[in-house]
Amino acid sequence: MKSLLRSMLAAMLLANAGYLMADSLADETYGTLVAADGTISLPDGFRQRWTHLGSWVVADSSAPGAGFHDVYTQPGAAQAYRANGEFADGTVLVKEIRALETGEKTTGMAQWAGETAVWFVMVRDTQGRFDSPHWGEGWGWALFEAKDPATNVSKSFEETCKGCHVPAQPSNWVFVEGYPTLK
Amino acid sequence: MKSLLRSMLAAMLLANAGYLMADSLADETYGTLVAADGTISLPDGFRQRWTHLGSWVVADSSAPGAGFHDVYTQPGAAQAYRANGEFADGTVLVKEIRALETGEKTTGMAQWAGETAVWFVMVRDTQGRFDSPHWGEGWGWALFEAKDPATNVSKSFEETCKGCHVPAQPSNWVFVEGYPTLK
Repeated sequence: MKSLLRSMLAAMLLANAGYLMADSLADETYGTLVAADGTISLPDGFRQRWTHLGSWVVADSSAPGAGFHDVYTQPGAAQAYRANGEFADGTVLVKEIRALETGEKTTGMAQWAGETAVWFVMVRDTQGRFDSPHWGEGWGWALFEAKDPATNVSKSFEETCKGCHVPAQPSNWVFVEGYPTLK
Repeated sequence: MKSLLRSMLAAMLLANAGYLMADSLADETYGTLVAADGTISLPDGFRQRWTHLGSWVVADSSAPGAGFHDVYTQPGAAQAYRANGEFADGTVLVKEIRALETGEKTTGMAQWAGETAVWFVMVRDTQGRFDSPHWGEGWGWALFEAKDPATNVSKSFEETCKGCHVPAQPSNWVFVEGYPTLK
C-alpha cells in the first residue's frame, strides 16, 4: 500500500513537473544556460536527464567530424517538436563528440564511444535576442572542449559552425534525419 | 516572478519525484513491466524519458549484431549504479537495434540509425523471483521485434541471449565499457 501511494505520488509529481518544464523552456534556458549578454554555457547533467535524440559515427579519422556523436535535448523540447514539428524557443541541442573505440565483439566488429573530445551546443532563439557573432539564423552556437568545458572556443557561428550545417538549412539547420525520437 | 516561482516549484517537484523513483525502482519494474508469472513487457517511452547509456555500431551487415544499437535505462537505475557500482534490483536495460544508414555528410562519411528492427531487454532480479527459461544469472531476458512489440520471441535466455553476453560475465553480463554514463 505504501509503495502504491508512493508510485501514485511520483506519477502526479512527474506529470506536474513535465507540464511546468515544457511551459518554462525559454525561461529556464535564458535564465540559466544563456547569460544576459548572450554568453552560452555548457549544460550540466544532460547525459543523465535529457532526451537522447540520436547518434552519428564518423569513422574516418581524417574527416573533420571524426568520432562518435551523441545528441541530446531537454525532454520538454523533444515533446514540443513532436507536437509542433519545429524547435521551440529555448530548445538546447548538445552534440557530444567522443573518441571512436573499435574492437571485435561477439556480435561482430563493433564501434563505440570513448573519451569526450568536444561539445557543440545550439540554442534556439525565435526572438532575435542578441547582436553577437555567436548568434544568428535563429540559433546561438557554441563549442566547448573537454579540457576546458567552461569556455566557448567558437570564433563565431559563421566561422566555426555554419559551414557544416548548410545542408540542414531546410530543417532549420539541424540534421533531423538522424533523430527518430523527434518523429 | 511568476516564472521564478514556477521554476522553483518545478525543481522541488522534480527533486521529490527523483527520490521517489529511485526508492521504488523494483516496485515499479515488478508492478508494471514484469507480470506476476515473470512475463517481460517492452517498456514504453524509454527513448523520451530514460537515460541513454551508450551506443554500439556493428557495421558488417553479415555480423550477428549488425546495426545501430542504443541502450537505455531508468534514470534512477543509472543513479544507483553510479552510487553503488552495481545494477540495482529492478534495473531495466533496453537495447534498441536499428538499421544502419550511411552517407556522405559535411563532417565526413557518416553512419546513423534508421528503422527499428528489434529490442533486447534485460531486467535485474537480485531475488531469484522466477523459475522460468527467460530468467537466470540474476536477470530476466527478452527479445521483441518491431513487427510485434507485444511478444517476447526469445526462446530462452540460454538459447537466445546468453551466448553473446559471456565475455561480459565479469561485469554482471553487461558490456559496461560502452556506457560512460555509468561512471
